[in-house]
Amino acid sequence: MRIIIDAMGGDNAPRAVVEGVYKAKSKLGREVALTLVGNEKEINAAAEELCISLDGIDIVHTEEKIGMEEAPSLVVRGKPECSMAVGMKLLKPDNGYGEVGDAFVSAGSTGALHVGSSVLVGRIKGVKRSCIAALLPFPTPLLLLDSGANSAVTPDFFVSWAVLGSVYMKHVIGCESPRVGLVNNGAEETKGTELYQEAHQLMKKADVGFVGNVEARDIPNGVCDVLVADGFTGNIVLKLVEGMGGFMMKTLKNIFSANIKTKLAYLFVKPQLRGLKKSFDSSEHGGAPIIGLKRPVIKAHGSADADTICNAVIQAALCVREDVCGVMERELGKLENSK
Amino acid sequence: MRIIIDAMGGDNAPRAVVEGVYKAKSKLGREVALTLVGNEKEINAAAEELCISLDGIDIVHTEEKIGMEEAPSLVVRGKPECSMAVGMKLLKPDNGYGEVGDAFVSAGSTGALHVGSSVLVGRIKGVKRSCIAALLPFPTPLLLLDSGANSAVTPDFFVSWAVLGSVYMKHVIGCESPRVGLVNNGAEETKGTELYQEAHQLMKKADVGFVGNVEARDIPNGVCDVLVADGFTGNIVLKLVEGMGGFMMKTLKNIFSANIKTKLAYLFVKPQLRGLKKSFDSSEHGGAPIIGLKRPVIKAHGSADADTICNAVIQAALCVREDVCGVMERELGKLENSK
Repeated sequence: MRIIIDAMGGDNAPRAVVEGVYKAKSKLGREVALTLVGNEKEINAAAEELCISLDGIDIVHTEEKIGMEEAPSLVVRGKPECSMAVGMKLLKPDNGYGEVGDAFVSAGSTGALHVGSSVLVGRIKGVKRSCIAALLPFPTPLLLLDSGANSAVTPDFFVSWAVLGSVYMKHVIGCESPRVGLVNNGAEETKGTELYQEAHQLMKKADVGFVGNVEARDIPNGVCDVLVADGFTGNIVLKLVEGMGGFMMKTLKNIFSANIKTKLAYLFVKPQLRGLKKSFDSSEHGGAPIIGLKRPVIKAHGSADADTICNAVIQAALCVREDVCGVMERELGKLENSK
Repeated sequence: MRIIIDAMGGDNAPRAVVEGVYKAKSKLGREVALTLVGNEKEINAAAEELCISLDGIDIVHTEEKIGMEEAPSLVVRGKPECSMAVGMKLLKPDNGYGEVGDAFVSAGSTGALHVGSSVLVGRIKGVKRSCIAALLPFPTPLLLLDSGANSAVTPDFFVSWAVLGSVYMKHVIGCESPRVGLVNNGAEETKGTELYQEAHQLMKKADVGFVGNVEARDIPNGVCDVLVADGFTGNIVLKLVEGMGGFMMKTLKNIFSANIKTKLAYLFVKPQLRGLKKSFDSSEHGGAPIIGLKRPVIKAHGSADADTICNAVIQAALCVREDVCGVMERELGKLENSK
């Protein structure tokens, strides 16, 4: 298999990407070929600076890249030869570049990756909209989707995302029988907006492991493994989890730095507090998969360092090995046939 | 002034309510008359059990009460003589009960109180829908509205809630110049659903101290004093703040109870950790005001104890003293005239 990586995406590109891919290579072994897409000169300069050899890592040169603040649509129109666009084109056979990739990783603009991947990678048959999933660690990992890609949705999107999210949780995270919840403002099926009431009914009828509405209060408590939401609501959930985590850690820091006694107390619980910090940081668990595409596409955090990139590449390889996109297509087909 | 209290609302009624009102009486002094509405026999039995005298506290007897699980509309149709309905009717002059109240407090069903108050207390001129506000403590208090009453909203609701919420923050909480934020999934004005895009434009044009969209990540960070949302989203924000707080406190408890060293460490930070717990519990700051009504109506938490009821009664008295509803009507009138 071959994983394609956008060398120019993210705040620390290309240096962090080059280092991360180098690390991933040593961990993944010969079975996995790696291709960096981006400015060859900059990539080689980064490798030289890091004193690492890129032997065995392929490079596809591009002049252009897409910035974090640029219009997402540029990736398909305007800058079709940027590193992100070329990287995704490499996932198609007969792409004209010689190499064919099986999965793509980028720490670049989320919007561009979402818009571009729908066009350049293509969606699984039956998926009307792809979405971005975020794995919230907590004590039990929870896959939240859509976590921000689609503000305008229809109830049927929820059902397909439930199926796709469950496949990901089962085959990539190892959750045997994923329980699917619908975020809502109450447990009763009549709760929420019309959209959520209709979505509830559709999910109840479909065979998707639906456990019902999940109130936001219970989100951290492991009541489901896959949590479905529209992108607007999902984004608010994701960012509020991060924001509350940050607030609590900052407050704890103030508490422990008050005086000599509290500073001493900190030493006794330091490692555990670090664990707590990780439990609400979705970027701690690799990248965010874009769900619903024909090939695995992983969005690494914009501020990704080398280790994060390395983890995202390993995650992409796992998706390919488990044929996650193939399983998703089959499971969605089963659902369509059972209608 | 006279505050009316629903003696039969909440999990611990009438005992906690009777005790809470007794406590409030000693704190508020003679200026504030108090009326308990509910089953006189049960109220007197509770007072006897508590060994307190209800001298100087009036009682309006009702046979019926409305349960937490009953249809909210029963408060206007079906059970018009329940304690909650009678309590609200007492706010009108010529109500036929003899006494006229200035504000109402209940720990009963939120839905019934919201539906009933619109009909029985009435909305301020220009307010299409009343909503429920929640005060999130954090390091700086934040008034979130709507926190759950209206799932179906139109963009103009947001503007009126911004005005009403600001009046409450200024006159009850003491925030001099409230900054109003709109919850959203991004800072740019083009972010969010159509509803939120339109609401953003309306709020930008109106003179409401609008500081723009607030991403959920920043909600705990004091970036605004009034946060406006539709009831579905607001409820998710409110409950996720509570849920994350609960999760963190549970995790901290586990961390500190691990061994003798960590237990010792706990002793050094115990009072501060209690403060942390309070910073995300909206019920720590009295009841939730129903915003947009002609008279102050305060919803105390369903699990309210005597102290919570006492605080809610004091809060209601403060609303009356500051003529919060009158100021709200004038401020909303100014906004209408400036159009």
